[in-house]
Amino acid sequence: MTDSDLRVGVIGVGMMGADHAERIAHRTSGARLVAVSDPDTARAGALAERYEGVRAVADPLALVADGDVDAVVIASPGFVHEEQVLACLEHGKPTLCEKPLTMDGESSLRLVRAEQSGGRPLVQLGFMRRFDPEYVRLKTLVDSGRLGRLLVLHNTHRNKDVPASFRSEMIVRDSLVHEVDVARFVFGEEITEITVYSPTPTSAAAEGVVDPQVSVFRMAGGAVVTNEVFVKNQVGYEVRCEAVCERGSAMAGRPWADLYTTAAGGDDGAWGGSIPADFRDRFALAYDRELQAWADASRRGVVVGPTTWDGYAATVVCEAGMESLVSGEPVAVRLADREGAG
Amino acid sequence: MTDSDLRVGVIGVGMMGADHAERIAHRTSGARLVAVSDPDTARAGALAERYEGVRAVADPLALVADGDVDAVVIASPGFVHEEQVLACLEHGKPTLCEKPLTMDGESSLRLVRAEQSGGRPLVQLGFMRRFDPEYVRLKTLVDSGRLGRLLVLHNTHRNKDVPASFRSEMIVRDSLVHEVDVARFVFGEEITEITVYSPTPTSAAAEGVVDPQVSVFRMAGGAVVTNEVFVKNQVGYEVRCEAVCERGSAMAGRPWADLYTTAAGGDDGAWGGSIPADFRDRFALAYDRELQAWADASRRGVVVGPTTWDGYAATVVCEAGMESLVSGEPVAVRLADREGAG
Amino acid sequence: MTDSDLRVGVIGVGMMGADHAERIAHRTSGARLVAVSDPDTARAGALAERYEGVRAVADPLALVADGDVDAVVIASPGFVHEEQVLACLEHGKPTLCEKPLTMDGESSLRLVRAEQSGGRPLVQLGFMRRFDPEYVRLKTLVDSGRLGRLLVLHNTHRNKDVPASFRSEMIVRDSLVHEVDVARFVFGEEITEITVYSPTPTSAAAEGVVDPQVSVFRMAGGAVVTNEVFVKNQVGYEVRCEAVCERGSAMAGRPWADLYTTAAGGDDGAWGGSIPADFRDRFALAYDRELQAWADASRRGVVVGPTTWDGYAATVVCEAGMESLVSGEPVAVRLADREGAG
Amino acid sequence: MTDSDLRVGVIGVGMMGADHAERIAHRTSGARLVAVSDPDTARAGALAERYEGVRAVADPLALVADGDVDAVVIASPGFVHEEQVLACLEHGKPTLCEKPLTMDGESSLRLVRAEQSGGRPLVQLGFMRRFDPEYVRLKTLVDSGRLGRLLVLHNTHRNKDVPASFRSEMIVRDSLVHEVDVARFVFGEEITEITVYSPTPTSAAAEGVVDPQVSVFRMAGGAVVTNEVFVKNQVGYEVRCEAVCERGSAMAGRPWADLYTTAAGGDDGAWGGSIPADFRDRFALAYDRELQAWADASRRGVVVGPTTWDGYAATVVCEAGMESLVSGEPVAVRLADREGAG
Repeated sequence: MTDSDLRVGVIGVGMMGADHAERIAHRTSGARLVAVSDPDTARAGALAERYEGVRAVADPLALVADGDVDAVVIASPGFVHEEQVLACLEHGKPTLCEKPLTMDGESSLRLVRAEQSGGRPLVQLGFMRRFDPEYVRLKTLVDSGRLGRLLVLHNTHRNKDVPASFRSEMIVRDSLVHEVDVARFVFGEEITEITVYSPTPTSAAAEGVVDPQVSVFRMAGGAVVTNEVFVKNQVGYEVRCEAVCERGSAMAGRPWADLYTTAAGGDDGAWGGSIPADFRDRFALAYDRELQAWADASRRGVVVGPTTWDGYAATVVCEAGMESLVSGEPVAVRLADREGAG
Repeated sequence: MTDSDLRVGVIGVGMMGADHAERIAHRTSGARLVAVSDPDTARAGALAERYEGVRAVADPLALVADGDVDAVVIASPGFVHEEQVLACLEHGKPTLCEKPLTMDGESSLRLVRAEQSGGRPLVQLGFMRRFDPEYVRLKTLVDSGRLGRLLVLHNTHRNKDVPASFRSEMIVRDSLVHEVDVARFVFGEEITEITVYSPTPTSAAAEGVVDPQVSVFRMAGGAVVTNEVFVKNQVGYEVRCEAVCERGSAMAGRPWADLYTTAAGGDDGAWGGSIPADFRDRFALAYDRELQAWADASRRGVVVGPTTWDGYAATVVCEAGMESLVSGEPVAVRLADREGAG
Repeated sequence: MTDSDLRVGVIGVGMMGADHAERIAHRTSGARLVAVSDPDTARAGALAERYEGVRAVADPLALVADGDVDAVVIASPGFVHEEQVLACLEHGKPTLCEKPLTMDGESSLRLVRAEQSGGRPLVQLGFMRRFDPEYVRLKTLVDSGRLGRLLVLHNTHRNKDVPASFRSEMIVRDSLVHEVDVARFVFGEEITEITVYSPTPTSAAAEGVVDPQVSVFRMAGGAVVTNEVFVKNQVGYEVRCEAVCERGSAMAGRPWADLYTTAAGGDDGAWGGSIPADFRDRFALAYDRELQAWADASRRGVVVGPTTWDGYAATVVCEAGMESLVSGEPVAVRLADREGAG
Repeated sequence: MTDSDLRVGVIGVGMMGADHAERIAHRTSGARLVAVSDPDTARAGALAERYEGVRAVADPLALVADGDVDAVVIASPGFVHEEQVLACLEHGKPTLCEKPLTMDGESSLRLVRAEQSGGRPLVQLGFMRRFDPEYVRLKTLVDSGRLGRLLVLHNTHRNKDVPASFRSEMIVRDSLVHEVDVARFVFGEEITEITVYSPTPTSAAAEGVVDPQVSVFRMAGGAVVTNEVFVKNQVGYEVRCEAVCERGSAMAGRPWADLYTTAAGGDDGAWGGSIPADFRDRFALAYDRELQAWADASRRGVVVGPTTWDGYAATVVCEAGMESLVSGEPVAVRLADREGAG
């Protein structure tokens, strides 16, 4: 597909961006890595050198404007997303933007409106779980109606460790945000209320940090979602989602769906397996498919998967969640009109 | 053990009481069934005839007073428990009382105080899950401290079907009551607050009945418990409990811990197994062990397992739960002083 | 059931016999422990003292003949079984005889014939797996015909450790014998040929011992059974049985059908559970039910479960297996006529 | 990577070849589909039209010789592989050849020798399981030595259905061949003997067809492998592999490692999931990775994964297996000298 290979530039080449760059370069059919940009120009330069025909561009907005760049992956920190996404919209470039869309609902909404004004959807949000084979099967099963209507969803999101600087609000904004998107995705509905409970924290938590957190969502259609987010469980990365329907249930993400082993131990032997240390292992295949789906759609001039609206709605729910984290009270989620009348 | 065989009378021989009678008669070492009583005297008579040397006694209080009855199992409806338990206390007879202890906190507290006045514990409450091998292992593991402090507990309680007369409050009082006891048992702490969420009900629910229900407990030590109770799931009886600790987690009651099968199906074959239709199958072994433990303890003159206090506390939490079911608000749980100073 | 309590004597109170004595004394309804016998009279005396009303009897045949003993459990070494079982038959006492029935086919057949001459079945063989709930469900499912005819059976039998004195032939006679009985039980057919393969042994095996062993049975109806027996796997006790039928399969004894846990580990966390160290844990419930079934049947004057014929057939198959272990060739199994014409 | 994109031609575009063509065209990074060939020229033409810039070439040898074709995928029937592979070797084109390498050991050996004469490895064999993530983890774990030496391997290979023309020998050559490769792969050793057992067949088998088949391999190092191949199990595609080591075991390919569901059923509800209908579902990811690995290696001028020697050895083992299927006796496997001295 030489003539139509999608020439991709990646903005932000920290851990996540470097992974995306590698996927574009070596694991995505019909796409080619041509440029990278990072405030750490040495890092960008080193990465560019690792691949044939890839340039390091100092200014991310110059990368966006570059005539040899067909499409852009944004993996920079959330607080610079607004101007970078706006530049992509201006230049009409298909974009894959890592979550969060932006740091607050207002700016996220501005991006939704800017894209709507352009008249053509261009941005896919980086909620990779929507591309995980198990979540996809769960969604397909729920949508099939074979189990009746979806009534309750239970999410579990456990992480082995986080840096000491990871605060309670970040657990809402950076971790729970995935459950927010999963709930909206599986139900196909908005969240209308969120309550965040603060159990006595694990002794491993940094001073003042509420970890684990339990939260409850009410959905627009009246269903209820429970969430446990635990970012310092000291064990590994466990993400589970159980959908409870009128005539059956389904569970995705069981850690035990892995190689089964037994092993000599202390007094007792053990059966089981290992749990991946982080999300990059667990969702490696989801990322592969996310990038491939984005490249395929970009070449066809369409957007598939989560949108700026999904990014905006997730941001607003997380803002309400951070408010509830402080007050301990239920907080209503207020979204703008989707079609932008307001 | 002829000389010291415990001679047992059973009050109330509906489904549960008849099961208990059968267990005493044929599956409990060191115990002998000698008398049964039921308002339906024909039913009591038919049951008595099935066993050698068993009398049907019309008046339950006469059964309690009978000199040839060493110990009593109460499986009558909850609203007659108070006078029957009081009679047992008065006659100093070891008693196994099915839950609920009584229908409200006040009368339950009277029984707690009456037993305390007698100076000798006599009553074991019928919370059978405390004798289920998996719950026992879960509790043992949590108490071992190997996984660190217990932070969050998730309970799932699903039932295939209930009679049309089963109302929303009964889901709290008769179903959630088991999760109430499990939470108190596993934590070894009281519940201080309960919130009951009412999702849009399954279309299989009777008019006006909230099913499933999601609820959240706060524990005295600051931990949080989530519960899903779903009494008409149309599938089968699924009871699960996951304990999330500082350095690991444990899950009891997985329905998949059963015979694994594959079978030819429609387009796709299937792997899996069957789910028991009701709690009598699922907890058959727990009931066996509950009765044996009760008989053994009764012969030794002690009480093991859940007590009248556990029955009282569960009743008070469920009263708060029924209030929250109506208001949708968190309701504080107020217990009397355990030692009865008040 | 005082008048009809089964008064039981136990011969041989090593580990297994002491377990049986405890079960009779405290966990079997309708049975009472009244006498024990052991060549180690101190051990028998100590055990008797632990229970009320139990006598130690020096001579096992005197115990059998004792008028106050209604029924006998034989848990002595296999080489004294013949005379003890014969004594039980002579005195018409219901007997539970631990496997092996005797040490060779000829003497086992003599017991089969002696029992047949008496005209009344009296002996239940101690193949406890037939009482394990999972094996029972497997057998029930296979017999139901829902999965079609049974074609292939795969047995796995792994043991954590054995004494250094445990030789290759003992792996056949004392371990594989259980798979022999399982195959005969599940198929309801005799084994007609056995081949024992000798893989290079584990380095943990004692000098000259073949461990693990892989063997193949041909059944009378043409089906094939594979077996792995591994007595020093250093892990724990794992016993599995998979039945492959025309339209489905079923597996019993999965070690993962236990409490599911996750735990902090080294680099990776782990999911899974522990594996019981020995058969007494794994089959505790099977032993409970075996003893109860035996006591119930004995009081009714019948025999349920495996018979002397099952003991005889297992012995003959194991003899053929020991021959194959040496030659590496398939060895035909030759059984006497069941009805004793020959 | 335009300049260095691997231009691929596919020979044989039946089900398997069409899948490969689609993968090259749309799911393989750095590769481009440029030509297809098939005796059914209409089929080849239709396929070519589906992709931009792909030609249908009538003569497969012309496709191999074509200067615009850098590398070749051979998915034609086994009996034409010899001349096609020879042509690829002659033109120095990297080749992915579907199994079997050829239909008999002699011709397979000729290809091994032809490649050795050329002095440069060019051919990867299509044993896709070596790229399945679970098999890869199993192999990695065994090779790590953490569980000690590998002693016994158990393979299970079940297929929902086959055409009525599928004969007993084809079960050896086309199905068991995968277990042959798995055993050689996991052990890193040759197979020295094979015995094929013929159980009474399923009533679903065509007249005269032995299905299921049980077989036993002896490995060069003395280990033993058991295999069950069942091609008409009426259920679905189940492939499992359990490695039993000195200090633990590991199992890959559990069908239950999928979405877990419960569902309302008849009398009992059911837990479990569905089993894929065929190998294309089960090994979809393995095929993706096989093609990507082949394209990456081809561009670097090397061969990774299974080789012509692996193809040759598998063919010889299967020939011995077909002999054993007829005789019921163990058959020794005789391989040529690997380095071609002979």
